[in-house]
Amino acid sequence: MIQIQSGTASIVEGKLHRGNEPKQFVYLHGGDICGAAEASGRNTAEILDFSANINPLGMPPGVREAIIESLDSSLNYPDPFCRGLKAALSEKLGQPENFILCGNGGADLIYRLVYATRPKRALVTAPAFAEYEEALNQTGTWIDFFPLGKTLEITEDYVDKLSAEHDMVFLCNPNNPTGILTPRSVVKKLLDKAKALDVRVCLDECFLDFVEHEEAYSAAGWLTEYPNLIILKSFTKMYAIPGLRLGYVLSADGELLNRMCLAGQPWSVSEPAQAAGIAALKAGGFREKTIALIDRERTFLKEQLEKLGFRVCDGRANYLCFQAEGDETLADRLQAEGILIRRCANYHGLGGDYYRTAVRGHEENEELLACLKKVL
Amino acid sequence: MIQIQSGTASIVEGKLHRGNEPKQFVYLHGGDICGAAEASGRNTAEILDFSANINPLGMPPGVREAIIESLDSSLNYPDPFCRGLKAALSEKLGQPENFILCGNGGADLIYRLVYATRPKRALVTAPAFAEYEEALNQTGTWIDFFPLGKTLEITEDYVDKLSAEHDMVFLCNPNNPTGILTPRSVVKKLLDKAKALDVRVCLDECFLDFVEHEEAYSAAGWLTEYPNLIILKSFTKMYAIPGLRLGYVLSADGELLNRMCLAGQPWSVSEPAQAAGIAALKAGGFREKTIALIDRERTFLKEQLEKLGFRVCDGRANYLCFQAEGDETLADRLQAEGILIRRCANYHGLGGDYYRTAVRGHEENEELLACLKKVL
Repeated sequence: MIQIQSGTASIVEGKLHRGNEPKQFVYLHGGDICGAAEASGRNTAEILDFSANINPLGMPPGVREAIIESLDSSLNYPDPFCRGLKAALSEKLGQPENFILCGNGGADLIYRLVYATRPKRALVTAPAFAEYEEALNQTGTWIDFFPLGKTLEITEDYVDKLSAEHDMVFLCNPNNPTGILTPRSVVKKLLDKAKALDVRVCLDECFLDFVEHEEAYSAAGWLTEYPNLIILKSFTKMYAIPGLRLGYVLSADGELLNRMCLAGQPWSVSEPAQAAGIAALKAGGFREKTIALIDRERTFLKEQLEKLGFRVCDGRANYLCFQAEGDETLADRLQAEGILIRRCANYHGLGGDYYRTAVRGHEENEELLACLKKVL
Repeated sequence: MIQIQSGTASIVEGKLHRGNEPKQFVYLHGGDICGAAEASGRNTAEILDFSANINPLGMPPGVREAIIESLDSSLNYPDPFCRGLKAALSEKLGQPENFILCGNGGADLIYRLVYATRPKRALVTAPAFAEYEEALNQTGTWIDFFPLGKTLEITEDYVDKLSAEHDMVFLCNPNNPTGILTPRSVVKKLLDKAKALDVRVCLDECFLDFVEHEEAYSAAGWLTEYPNLIILKSFTKMYAIPGLRLGYVLSADGELLNRMCLAGQPWSVSEPAQAAGIAALKAGGFREKTIALIDRERTFLKEQLEKLGFRVCDGRANYLCFQAEGDETLADRLQAEGILIRRCANYHGLGGDYYRTAVRGHEENEELLACLKKVL
């Protein structure tokens, strides 16, 4: 296993070590269209962004109106308890209100979780969403990275790696950037072992909204059974409001949620975000329509990417991860044409020839494919 | 001096001690109109809120339109570097862009500062804005509270209390909840001593925008001279966008700003907040108009409150702090009438008969006074 403790990373004898030098802030994610526009001499509207994974249908009906209406109450502080939003979530999810904590996007809640628990040692897959590591670096947590190997699947081998020395384990389902789902049986084994060893499980289901038969994969039904379980959810992707910032966690551990409240300011969720969330939950049929579109377009895009010679992961979310063997400049060449895809070189466990692309509407997907053909 | 270390507070032999029991999250501030509405059986629109200190003129012209326009780009992640907003701030303030870090409201930046520096021992006035203590509790910081005494002024006595054992000192100018200004000479003495002792100074100038001749009080001109200085600023109050969350810090210590970046998620400032900030900075004459209104109304309100027999602090911001000697239920009686003022009982150093009220427009101030007469 690769072991990391906070600081700057360097690879020594096959292991990733870190010194204690202060780290420079580097933006690790997709979606920086301002930066891409600057770099390519375009304005942001000319950039076609496949580097962030947002619903191509845009905001559900009613959300925009709800945000505009909320501007009148933005003259007041936002409700620190998100009362209306929590009530709406509780009804929608069939979970008690006291199992829910809302945050300024899912990433805000990752930092709150880590600050509230200050884990000594955590287990994380390689690859995984980079903010787990970034947050754990803030608490000096020792991180064991478990490389997923060639298949990039999360299997029982990951469960085997969990030990009593850990106090937190992260699992992203479907994983980011691969989009690969972990079977519910593996999740359950992880939860059982973690419960026996008194380890918290942070289960990131932010992209599970895009998966058909979500209920066959989600652990949300097990919250009461596993008080060590924290499920991370986002409004950002499905409801196309990344600019507004809204996410939440689910957990039966009320004491933990209380500590997460204390771990940051009381007004983290803005008034427009609360209003957008409430309106989004009312949008009937929007998720189903989205899933149908994404399924169709993902199948199409995957076939076409494979035809271009890429090795494409069996992703099931609204993005696809692929390897362009040996080609480490593909994203640069696309960016010069005004198209952004996500370079995966900074994910542990992936080489510089791995990329992630969002699944968008058919026309945009065709544009991406045409541009890929041009630059290959 | 009162000394506190994180945990639950209790008063023992005149000192405030804290145990190690986990604390329950309690909302400590004004502006909870949802809670007040629930408690008084009204809807939020029927509540007249003097408990939060927001510009009675509302948002400056152009801000609302800029927010609505930003909803199209809210389909993208917000710019993690707040490039446009930082450029606009830099121009407006005459400060280099690399001295500026934006956050999800001023409170977000207090937590980032504390997490990034993990002070061992801090010096704070009693009273002061409660989030300093709340943030410091998260890092187990020992807090020395310096009671300001009967005058509630911050004088050189506060500077005298600073010692080499401290690694951070907080000063709020004008102070919250008193509104009393600290002379620039005292601020300079604090900066000098702190620099000599290698102590960081967090100078909260969030309400200085409302003070005429701000430049006679602000330390912003001394940033380069004192790399140990961090100035906290807010858009919330002057530009009436508390619901949107936007604040920033100024410091010449680039290494510190970098660590504050790393101390939380990269997308803390929403797209609408960035757009609102840029538009607000363009609103010419808005601040001057606000200051004229507030000066006039504060003078009026202070006189009237004194006529009612209250002891009113010499506040210079858009709020007034007063003592209703022996009357600890005044806010409750007002709330039953649908008017919220801020109870100051949970500020260290203030008794249960201290209150803070916002200075609003003339009509609302008259309503407050009429209601006060009714419940006295």
